[in-house]
Amino acid sequence: MAYSPLLEQLLQALRCLPGVGARTAQRMAFHLLERDREGARVLAAALAEGVDKIGECETCRMLSEDASCWICSSANRDRSLLCVVESPADVIAIEESGIYRGRYFVLQGRLSPLDGIGPDELGLALFERNLDQGETAETILSTSSTEEGKATAAYLAGLARERQVKVSRIAHGVPIGGELEYVDRSTLSRAITGRNSLELE
Amino acid sequence: MAYSPLLEQLLQALRCLPGVGARTAQRMAFHLLERDREGARVLAAALAEGVDKIGECETCRMLSEDASCWICSSANRDRSLLCVVESPADVIAIEESGIYRGRYFVLQGRLSPLDGIGPDELGLALFERNLDQGETAETILSTSSTEEGKATAAYLAGLARERQVKVSRIAHGVPIGGELEYVDRSTLSRAITGRNSLELE
Repeated sequence: MAYSPLLEQLLQALRCLPGVGARTAQRMAFHLLERDREGARVLAAALAEGVDKIGECETCRMLSEDASCWICSSANRDRSLLCVVESPADVIAIEESGIYRGRYFVLQGRLSPLDGIGPDELGLALFERNLDQGETAETILSTSSTEEGKATAAYLAGLARERQVKVSRIAHGVPIGGELEYVDRSTLSRAITGRNSLELE
Repeated sequence: MAYSPLLEQLLQALRCLPGVGARTAQRMAFHLLERDREGARVLAAALAEGVDKIGECETCRMLSEDASCWICSSANRDRSLLCVVESPADVIAIEESGIYRGRYFVLQGRLSPLDGIGPDELGLALFERNLDQGETAETILSTSSTEEGKATAAYLAGLARERQVKVSRIAHGVPIGGELEYVDRSTLSRAITGRNSLELE
């Protein structure tokens, strides 16, 4: 036996964290036990409170402990824009860019019939209700550029067009500051086929 | 505001883990909340129980929830050998090698007068009591090969020799399977000055 039962239990539990294997779990456990027991107590409490209280926003499905998340309940948001993303991490990424002031809808996935993920799992009835409220003038489909992400965007576009809501898709192409020789082939092919003509002004 | 208060609290708490910055904390929090709430509950409980119950072995200072750790209380250990290491992780590393069947003493650090770490902080009174019980025939000093680790080993060697206990030092040199050109300079210089003569048998 390499560890005491409680150490073993803690090491196993730490491995539920993404990217944490046996070695990292050991480093984390020993760090907390030897040098930061207060941090471990705070983390235990934050985890317990988080999983207990954080659910989904009833409007946009963002992770939130309130029925209406901090974005949906903000008075400073442009309610005519609705950006659809696959995950809460996508919301944070766009928020950090600072460029977008509309609202979001979080699918928590993308259409994948083979995995049993259909419109119900993505909360599309709720998405339709959002559109039906009539405030949304444009929906920006920001699902990934995988085949499933594209199929999801096509399906959502249909729902929006039925309601005369303008549909757009987030632009794909060469990242700003990215050197062409290091950009992957499919991004580059997308950037060339989707080129924008420069008009004289 | 980029996160709800409880999300922010969880992200901050996760950053007490070594090697976890803002981006990794976000990935961990979203993973747990979206895909593994049960794992998060188990982790919260294991952390709380661990920091509450895991202390130090009263004999060797290894992390343990029992007064006597699983190594000290094992009947299958060679009580004539006492290996002194700096940290619990060192114990695990030696245990995993499978080569050592004696007992340990964990210093939880090394002598460092400038940082206020002296014999008391390293539990050396307890180390002396272990030697005084008379079972130890040899102590293997396995502190690190830093200056402080070497000074610590020298100090421990004095305590052991006062009691006619044989003193040895773990061998340093080229790692097995290590190619010479990739071995760092100080290890190589140590390996050459500490070369072993090969006798004809």
